[in-house]
Amino acid sequence: MPNILLIKEIVKKALEEDLAGGDVTTEAMIPPDLGGQGVIKAREELFLAGLEVAREVFAALDPDISFRPEHEDGDELKEGEVVATLSGRARTLLTGERVALNFVQRLSGVATLTRRFVNLVQGTKATIVDTRKTTPGLRALEKYAVRVGGGQNHRHGLYDMYLIKDNHIATVGSIKEAVGRARRAASLAAKIEVETKTLQEVKEALEAEADVIMLDNMSLQEMEEAVAVVKGWALVEASGGINLENVRSIAETGVDFISVGGLTHSARAVDLSMDITPVED
Amino acid sequence: MPNILLIKEIVKKALEEDLAGGDVTTEAMIPPDLGGQGVIKAREELFLAGLEVAREVFAALDPDISFRPEHEDGDELKEGEVVATLSGRARTLLTGERVALNFVQRLSGVATLTRRFVNLVQGTKATIVDTRKTTPGLRALEKYAVRVGGGQNHRHGLYDMYLIKDNHIATVGSIKEAVGRARRAASLAAKIEVETKTLQEVKEALEAEADVIMLDNMSLQEMEEAVAVVKGWALVEASGGINLENVRSIAETGVDFISVGGLTHSARAVDLSMDITPVED
Amino acid sequence: MPNILLIKEIVKKALEEDLAGGDVTTEAMIPPDLGGQGVIKAREELFLAGLEVAREVFAALDPDISFRPEHEDGDELKEGEVVATLSGRARTLLTGERVALNFVQRLSGVATLTRRFVNLVQGTKATIVDTRKTTPGLRALEKYAVRVGGGQNHRHGLYDMYLIKDNHIATVGSIKEAVGRARRAASLAAKIEVETKTLQEVKEALEAEADVIMLDNMSLQEMEEAVAVVKGWALVEASGGINLENVRSIAETGVDFISVGGLTHSARAVDLSMDITPVED
Amino acid sequence: MPNILLIKEIVKKALEEDLAGGDVTTEAMIPPDLGGQGVIKAREELFLAGLEVAREVFAALDPDISFRPEHEDGDELKEGEVVATLSGRARTLLTGERVALNFVQRLSGVATLTRRFVNLVQGTKATIVDTRKTTPGLRALEKYAVRVGGGQNHRHGLYDMYLIKDNHIATVGSIKEAVGRARRAASLAAKIEVETKTLQEVKEALEAEADVIMLDNMSLQEMEEAVAVVKGWALVEASGGINLENVRSIAETGVDFISVGGLTHSARAVDLSMDITPVED
Amino acid sequence: MPNILLIKEIVKKALEEDLAGGDVTTEAMIPPDLGGQGVIKAREELFLAGLEVAREVFAALDPDISFRPEHEDGDELKEGEVVATLSGRARTLLTGERVALNFVQRLSGVATLTRRFVNLVQGTKATIVDTRKTTPGLRALEKYAVRVGGGQNHRHGLYDMYLIKDNHIATVGSIKEAVGRARRAASLAAKIEVETKTLQEVKEALEAEADVIMLDNMSLQEMEEAVAVVKGWALVEASGGINLENVRSIAETGVDFISVGGLTHSARAVDLSMDITPVED
Amino acid sequence: MPNILLIKEIVKKALEEDLAGGDVTTEAMIPPDLGGQGVIKAREELFLAGLEVAREVFAALDPDISFRPEHEDGDELKEGEVVATLSGRARTLLTGERVALNFVQRLSGVATLTRRFVNLVQGTKATIVDTRKTTPGLRALEKYAVRVGGGQNHRHGLYDMYLIKDNHIATVGSIKEAVGRARRAASLAAKIEVETKTLQEVKEALEAEADVIMLDNMSLQEMEEAVAVVKGWALVEASGGINLENVRSIAETGVDFISVGGLTHSARAVDLSMDITPVED
Repeated sequence: MPNILLIKEIVKKALEEDLAGGDVTTEAMIPPDLGGQGVIKAREELFLAGLEVAREVFAALDPDISFRPEHEDGDELKEGEVVATLSGRARTLLTGERVALNFVQRLSGVATLTRRFVNLVQGTKATIVDTRKTTPGLRALEKYAVRVGGGQNHRHGLYDMYLIKDNHIATVGSIKEAVGRARRAASLAAKIEVETKTLQEVKEALEAEADVIMLDNMSLQEMEEAVAVVKGWALVEASGGINLENVRSIAETGVDFISVGGLTHSARAVDLSMDITPVED
Repeated sequence: MPNILLIKEIVKKALEEDLAGGDVTTEAMIPPDLGGQGVIKAREELFLAGLEVAREVFAALDPDISFRPEHEDGDELKEGEVVATLSGRARTLLTGERVALNFVQRLSGVATLTRRFVNLVQGTKATIVDTRKTTPGLRALEKYAVRVGGGQNHRHGLYDMYLIKDNHIATVGSIKEAVGRARRAASLAAKIEVETKTLQEVKEALEAEADVIMLDNMSLQEMEEAVAVVKGWALVEASGGINLENVRSIAETGVDFISVGGLTHSARAVDLSMDITPVED
Repeated sequence: MPNILLIKEIVKKALEEDLAGGDVTTEAMIPPDLGGQGVIKAREELFLAGLEVAREVFAALDPDISFRPEHEDGDELKEGEVVATLSGRARTLLTGERVALNFVQRLSGVATLTRRFVNLVQGTKATIVDTRKTTPGLRALEKYAVRVGGGQNHRHGLYDMYLIKDNHIATVGSIKEAVGRARRAASLAAKIEVETKTLQEVKEALEAEADVIMLDNMSLQEMEEAVAVVKGWALVEASGGINLENVRSIAETGVDFISVGGLTHSARAVDLSMDITPVED
Repeated sequence: MPNILLIKEIVKKALEEDLAGGDVTTEAMIPPDLGGQGVIKAREELFLAGLEVAREVFAALDPDISFRPEHEDGDELKEGEVVATLSGRARTLLTGERVALNFVQRLSGVATLTRRFVNLVQGTKATIVDTRKTTPGLRALEKYAVRVGGGQNHRHGLYDMYLIKDNHIATVGSIKEAVGRARRAASLAAKIEVETKTLQEVKEALEAEADVIMLDNMSLQEMEEAVAVVKGWALVEASGGINLENVRSIAETGVDFISVGGLTHSARAVDLSMDITPVED
Repeated sequence: MPNILLIKEIVKKALEEDLAGGDVTTEAMIPPDLGGQGVIKAREELFLAGLEVAREVFAALDPDISFRPEHEDGDELKEGEVVATLSGRARTLLTGERVALNFVQRLSGVATLTRRFVNLVQGTKATIVDTRKTTPGLRALEKYAVRVGGGQNHRHGLYDMYLIKDNHIATVGSIKEAVGRARRAASLAAKIEVETKTLQEVKEALEAEADVIMLDNMSLQEMEEAVAVVKGWALVEASGGINLENVRSIAETGVDFISVGGLTHSARAVDLSMDITPVED
Repeated sequence: MPNILLIKEIVKKALEEDLAGGDVTTEAMIPPDLGGQGVIKAREELFLAGLEVAREVFAALDPDISFRPEHEDGDELKEGEVVATLSGRARTLLTGERVALNFVQRLSGVATLTRRFVNLVQGTKATIVDTRKTTPGLRALEKYAVRVGGGQNHRHGLYDMYLIKDNHIATVGSIKEAVGRARRAASLAAKIEVETKTLQEVKEALEAEADVIMLDNMSLQEMEEAVAVVKGWALVEASGGINLENVRSIAETGVDFISVGGLTHSARAVDLSMDITPVED
């Protein structure tokens, strides 16, 4: 879970863009003291993610809303199952509904798609990881949703790992030199990964003692050979053009990680609803 | 186009989440004064949206980057066509690449999907509009992308239009009373829309002089009857469960607007690349 | 009421500019645990607006302050009537007093002036509306105060309505073309208004199917003629040079709206006081 | 002049509240590359204040706008005189006009009212000063406008001076004790002022070596006596109920400062216009 | 104490830079509902400062943490003494520990060093004051710590006092002219100080009626002569090159203030620890 | 170097706290158009860090200041050497001086102290690294200064590495279990470190395949034994109570890293000056 301060800030921005001058309809219709109940339900099969973000949406508007989860992030829900029930001012429930659902639908969409990939590689040693192809402003939340779906995260940004690409190598002259420079500059915490396109480059990265070697758009056979060459002395990541059709065969080549940009950049939002009913005291 | 101050703020947040402590790899490899050229290309057929956001990404990092568009938002591109060329410090090009592409891929994805819907209703009087089911934090940009794709926008948030739903009606007692309250509260600028589920409700909304009447999840036949009842005295919007398969038949019922949540909540990111090559002075 | 997140942000800025390094006098004099009571009173006749903003001022400093309103926004108060009573730490009451009063005095000033205009047009069909001539940073609050005073709001900003002025018309060539462009660009939610200076322009705007027609600085007779021409097919707004002396005669021409910049840009702050007395446990 | 970073932040907030989703009318009508000229004029006699804020409004939208002042802050303008001329994109001129004028009209209103008070006390030793009764969020700008109008500033907030009021005195027991505490707590930079209601209190404040003694709502005769008692050993400030009618007689009592809340809380905005004309290349 | 809103903002920034994507170790190890106790202890002799900031660190993460101080700011602690005990979620205690200690260690370091200077000048009339050589972003807190340590503050920034240096004097021509300009521009609240390097300049500053005269890097004998010349008609501040070795002899020259940059720019953080133990319900 | 957006934000905060209502002295004395030159010099021997931050300070105030470095970060300077020369408006130079120096003095202080430690371990395999004991709000800059001084960084915060401490181990039951949990939760980029206090714990950490093993407050002999046990299969870090006196002997035990909290929490600011002279055109 990203830290609570970040979640609050993202929630605040989202509410501000929806609310601006206020929920004019609700203010004109609903008395300020009318109570209400809300029920959030799954409208299709899904893996839940982002429930605490929904809680924060309502809390930001009104600290008196009671938010009772029936499930937690990572649970698999059937169509019709209740996610959470809420009670408090009817106005707040109506005003917060859309923003809360927008978060949970997107994040559960990411978790659900991730889980499909994870299920497909079950029994192999491969772990599904994400990329930096995330929605601007929501990276921490989307990477969290990937973890909820059973995947792991690749680096969080340009700052927490060295990922040496062809441009970098071309500029400094060789993989060996590039890894050496990274090692000297790196924090104690940072790993070093090298992107490779050929078996020759895999060997160079291995000799340079890279922590992780990325096989970029290689064929299945090349990947198998690369895994054989590396023999566990470095971690191996398959990358490029991976989808639900080919992920299993890639996993069976023996790679340690498979990175899938689509987990975050093209996940379909899953369908959730929130029913709100007024409650007289 | 959302105002430039908002774009700059969104870009800043996106860069901050990717950069934090800096692009450690590039800083360790690429000399600060090495020049570079970048070419952004379409890797599939798409409608372009968000090019100015990409420009702002690089400008926020380095005012000296030259950014030369070869196309503008709204253009249809074939696979392989050049979107823009850039020149300046190689470091900046490498550091800004991913964030810039993340924006353009998502926004072009929204525009491209919108255009598919718009093409399908060509020749009818129906206009494709979006919803509030947008990515938290990116609403203004995504609504812009819908316009680029040939759609129009529904309300921007809870503040700029009255949209009276069943909960509101239940609380105040009748559609007539609800519209009356809205009219008294409304700014001179705000229109009033009523969500209806039956023909009876359509008639009540019409008598209450709603500006727009939403037909919520009605059958094709109900929609046709509703259009016949309204006779142009209000605008009519079809809503609920609309997809690429059924949008044409809905348009042919004679409704004025068709709102599609999927335009923004489930558009697939389109594929774009940026090739960067160092340039010696 | 603007959304609570916006109010909190405005309150925070206001406290920051007054407090900076702290309320040095109170800190040097008043023990941290000394209790206190505060009584906010009207010192002249006024229509109250902004009470919840005052509550937020004290809440931002100290969540333990009890704030008990004796009236609510929109109430008419006589000189000497109690607006609210507060209890809690004496330090907080002393520190928050000025900022809280600054808000309520200004907003009640706007509400009170608005009410004077509203009273003057009673019995006509005219509604008093505001303009964009608001205090930078306080627009949402001032527009709220106009509503509290019985007026309605014109557009909230450049974004929620099309208001076509002479410059726009000159550039595109004709009122007809201008309205057409606006209609094609407009969101489903946005109305279109045209500013006119002559009866001829009123007719063109009517033919172009503008939603609202502004009569800019017309004579009473021209306004009457314009109303006769429009015959209810569009809303008609009188604008320019309106004051307490001439508003009644303008209202009697039959216009729907009368916009008054002075409601917000030149309202006099009304006089309120807050008496604070220490309370021993 | 408040520091440039603060001005930029206030300008940004003001533009954001007006622009949000953009200037929809201008974007629909005015081609992006159309040039324009703008002329800002006084529409009544006024003392100018806030011109640099207006410049920042346009600069924030578009760095290419040329802004050429014909006058500077503090100048007295006759009706019809040109304040500044602008050139650049017509879109920017139209979009920034209202926010820029809102600033200059309010700040010039404060400067103009201040100057009326200052003129009335000419030839006496009294200096007109402001109070903390300023518009929330705009204090630094309004206090600047007071200086432009020939007044001086009282303290900027609760942090930069000790102002000991009756509540403080009641709590600590005596004026002497209160001033002593303030002196021990005060920074080297901070002066100490005591609010007095009787001649006896004036004497106590003098003995306690207050730097400034405020005469709160005293009669003219009491003020004269107070001035005689103090004999220049402390600065003397008249406060409470001061207006254009009584300010001269108060000044003639010999006080050093006269503080007027109305300078900022009730100044009428002065009238300025901006004419914009398109310019073909 | 700086105002609570500023403290909250500084705490938020500090937590954000430490937390970003969360406390990954604690989240992987510690169950969310496990309780814990924390004990903050002094690990060397020190004067405590910043305890309320530590409280805010934990409150920002989790409002349910109980924070019970055993001492308050300004207390002298021996090695091993308990500063405060905390209880609540073990996760929060672990996550907030370092940031909380970073604040208290630095601020107590400033207070402790200040106290050493203050003790050395005991019995003289000299007061130890700080400078603007503070840590960027932490000025208000560090100046608070100086007060806690028994010192007083010099001006808070460039805005709350006039400090006329050689450059200013050179530009306007003479000390007399410089002080005159300052007096005309100054708010009622602002004092005027002149930096002097010779006895001749001290005399000029005195004649110009400066409120404070700074003796910049003068010898002990020059300082004594300056004090004799000024005779109490202005406050006198010694400045430049002051340390624990020479501060006593400087104080004995009779100056009113001694300013020491090292109080804030070079204070050593004192040593504090926080022991955390899990608590089963 | 931290990313430029972060630097700009930190600089903005620092200027805001110093400037608030403006540099009142300079505004009263120095004509707006007077030119000036500034020379920043070292007043003692030092390793330079933070020069680009100084540049940003002046750029934030005034884009027209010319800033010409004579040295770059990492250079060793003798007393009296010129760091940079500036030219532009005299006002800007005077106003920005203190904030700019505050940054460079602190960061150069960190770099200089780091270099002393680095020099002491020359010829051993040990690398000097920092800790999270940094100044709140300045971590990224201080960690940069450590790198400039020849050290490397430990983790940047709680988010980019797993650091398993005694509390974590106690809660999950064993080092083995703790490392296992971390491995399952970890991103591909994150390393895992275990804090150990005994040789037995070192062995357990090694068996659990920790990436880094921290020797917490061990004796020299224990460290030697630990290094012998680990035999290069993990990285070894010495931590706790390290100073300039004992760092060499610790380095000679063969550890890979030595972490020193004092690099950032107790570095003395080095002495730099900026001389400013007016320049007539």
